[in-house]
Amino acid sequence: MIPELVLSQQRGPVLLLTFNRPDVLNAWTNELEDVYFDLLAAADDDPDVRAIVITGAGRGFCSGADLSNLKNVGDVSDEDLVRPRSREFPTSLRKPLIGAINGVAAGLGFVEALYCDVRFGSSATRFTTAFAKRGLIAEYGISWMLPRLVGRSRATDLLLSSRMVGADEAYRIGLIDHLVDGDVVEAAVAYAAEIAANCSPTSLSVMKSQLSADETGTFDESTQRAETLMVNAFRGPDVVEGVASHLERRPPNFPSLSVRSSHVSL
Amino acid sequence: MIPELVLSQQRGPVLLLTFNRPDVLNAWTNELEDVYFDLLAAADDDPDVRAIVITGAGRGFCSGADLSNLKNVGDVSDEDLVRPRSREFPTSLRKPLIGAINGVAAGLGFVEALYCDVRFGSSATRFTTAFAKRGLIAEYGISWMLPRLVGRSRATDLLLSSRMVGADEAYRIGLIDHLVDGDVVEAAVAYAAEIAANCSPTSLSVMKSQLSADETGTFDESTQRAETLMVNAFRGPDVVEGVASHLERRPPNFPSLSVRSSHVSL
Amino acid sequence: MIPELVLSQQRGPVLLLTFNRPDVLNAWTNELEDVYFDLLAAADDDPDVRAIVITGAGRGFCSGADLSNLKNVGDVSDEDLVRPRSREFPTSLRKPLIGAINGVAAGLGFVEALYCDVRFGSSATRFTTAFAKRGLIAEYGISWMLPRLVGRSRATDLLLSSRMVGADEAYRIGLIDHLVDGDVVEAAVAYAAEIAANCSPTSLSVMKSQLSADETGTFDESTQRAETLMVNAFRGPDVVEGVASHLERRPPNFPSLSVRSSHVSL
Repeated sequence: MIPELVLSQQRGPVLLLTFNRPDVLNAWTNELEDVYFDLLAAADDDPDVRAIVITGAGRGFCSGADLSNLKNVGDVSDEDLVRPRSREFPTSLRKPLIGAINGVAAGLGFVEALYCDVRFGSSATRFTTAFAKRGLIAEYGISWMLPRLVGRSRATDLLLSSRMVGADEAYRIGLIDHLVDGDVVEAAVAYAAEIAANCSPTSLSVMKSQLSADETGTFDESTQRAETLMVNAFRGPDVVEGVASHLERRPPNFPSLSVRSSHVSL
Repeated sequence: MIPELVLSQQRGPVLLLTFNRPDVLNAWTNELEDVYFDLLAAADDDPDVRAIVITGAGRGFCSGADLSNLKNVGDVSDEDLVRPRSREFPTSLRKPLIGAINGVAAGLGFVEALYCDVRFGSSATRFTTAFAKRGLIAEYGISWMLPRLVGRSRATDLLLSSRMVGADEAYRIGLIDHLVDGDVVEAAVAYAAEIAANCSPTSLSVMKSQLSADETGTFDESTQRAETLMVNAFRGPDVVEGVASHLERRPPNFPSLSVRSSHVSL
Repeated sequence: MIPELVLSQQRGPVLLLTFNRPDVLNAWTNELEDVYFDLLAAADDDPDVRAIVITGAGRGFCSGADLSNLKNVGDVSDEDLVRPRSREFPTSLRKPLIGAINGVAAGLGFVEALYCDVRFGSSATRFTTAFAKRGLIAEYGISWMLPRLVGRSRATDLLLSSRMVGADEAYRIGLIDHLVDGDVVEAAVAYAAEIAANCSPTSLSVMKSQLSADETGTFDESTQRAETLMVNAFRGPDVVEGVASHLERRPPNFPSLSVRSSHVSL
């Protein structure tokens, strides 16, 4: 029997996914990617999933692309290298994706960690871009993402030097948002469960789209878009429930997101 | 007699404004907004005002939109929701606006704190976006502003989770620029007075416009704009005074900003 | 004999440059700028140089424009003020430029420090924008660069107040990436030598261009550009050597950058 490349476990409203190639620190393959993105796409449409946590089995989070595929670099086809889904999912997933970065995240594993909305780490967490040591470039948008997380100069430092960054520095500069003493997976699941219990799924989805859209454009364009979205929100059911539950000091009961009307491939 | 919604006190060259609804943690109403923006517009044209400090009366800075107006959400008109002045003033105010965030800044109160150029806080300072818990969206440009202050991932964390951020974390991630042991208002006024005593009002106004313009566009566009502005500066009186006062080791005596030639509604 | 305005010393694959007007804290002149940029342009084309370190002789890094030139401000010509090369080199230099900020970096000296890809500092490091105190504006792109390093609010604080920032704060907010207990120049040279020993010059050059290009535009544009660059990389010699040296656990032997085919004035 073939072991599952990505484990999937429902924890109440939270879906916990686990990269599952622990003997190679969960090195990335095209097969693992397909399973992972299929699980994310299904979770996005599943009304019982309100937030997703991704972690790695064993000691590592993800050690990057599996080099055993690259021994004969000349044989690699363009199709092996270019994966359009990678480009789409960070901006199209509607639900919070929380990273529990349990160990090393290197190369493409670093990129996948950055695609998470929020990252949890522990003393075992480590990051390295690694690309410059392999003769590679800043892959899959990391040269766009990293400066927006840690600033232009720190991003340049990490990309040019390929040095290993430990948990304390990662927390200090903003690579991880929450540094946990205990179990990083349990902390990430608890955080995701808090969001699921208290926050409107529609609000979360709209906010994620606003954060993406507002990366470019002016402040004025952002506030104009926000005005339209705010008026829409006041015409929907979630504001009524949000305000009522607040005034009545009870937990809110927000509707789930509906299945996407138009198919978006993740 | 109706109490003033925003108190105004001149402290030498610094105007100290205070949101004044302390019994409701200075919850925001359209009336308070009108008074506040009118005071800012007047201060911008007043040659005796060189910098402005905004704080809140009592325990809070501003607890957000007054929910007592929202009990019947369906009755809220678009006009109540959309406030074009909110969109204009962060980029049009020519003088430094310093926030003395004396307590909780929630929802719209968080946004108003972000509109300040620089923020002071104390151990009592707390921030929460709150929008997702009420079924709302990222209002009034906070999804544009917040990532540019604290980075994309921390902004996402604060918007999705709606969690409360205390003073130490706020200082660590850059929500407040100065963490004060003593009186946060006095510290902010002292900082504003230093700027008023030492810095050219024209320089401050030009720099604020540069910071806004440079949020979009390339480095090359920024340096080209800076070249033109620098040549203009060398043709005006402030550089002569700035260099002379420096070489003569005396305080500078810069001219005040003139009243705006064209009316800009704040 | 005229002393050299910028000292140049080869340290293995690292070129160490030193501003050399120590009696005036290495105040900037047009002559010094010409020498510095000529040295950078030559280093960029020199196959024996893999990384560059810039520092200052004596107590300061660079105290800014030499005010002795500005005593008669009215006499300054536009040609003295506008220096197109300043605008070009931060985005055109292909090799890592590491700043060893050994003392005060003020005004234009601050700007030159920001043009470095990565900055090292020690307890003696200090920064001040200084422009607002002289009636000047945010010069040479600092209003573009500074928010992208330390965030919008901290950048505004430093530009409006012109206050002096010490080493600890500079490290905390991201003005310096590495805070060194011992000799800041030796630490920067060691870091540059590590990059030279382990990282592909072509990778470094491509990554620098990606970081610049990705400052504007969308995530999708960045990932599309990265796909093309990655396919190109897999067709070149560096990936073969990078993967082989990794699997064989030996240092890589990457080719040097060739001389630029088209002349780019630095």
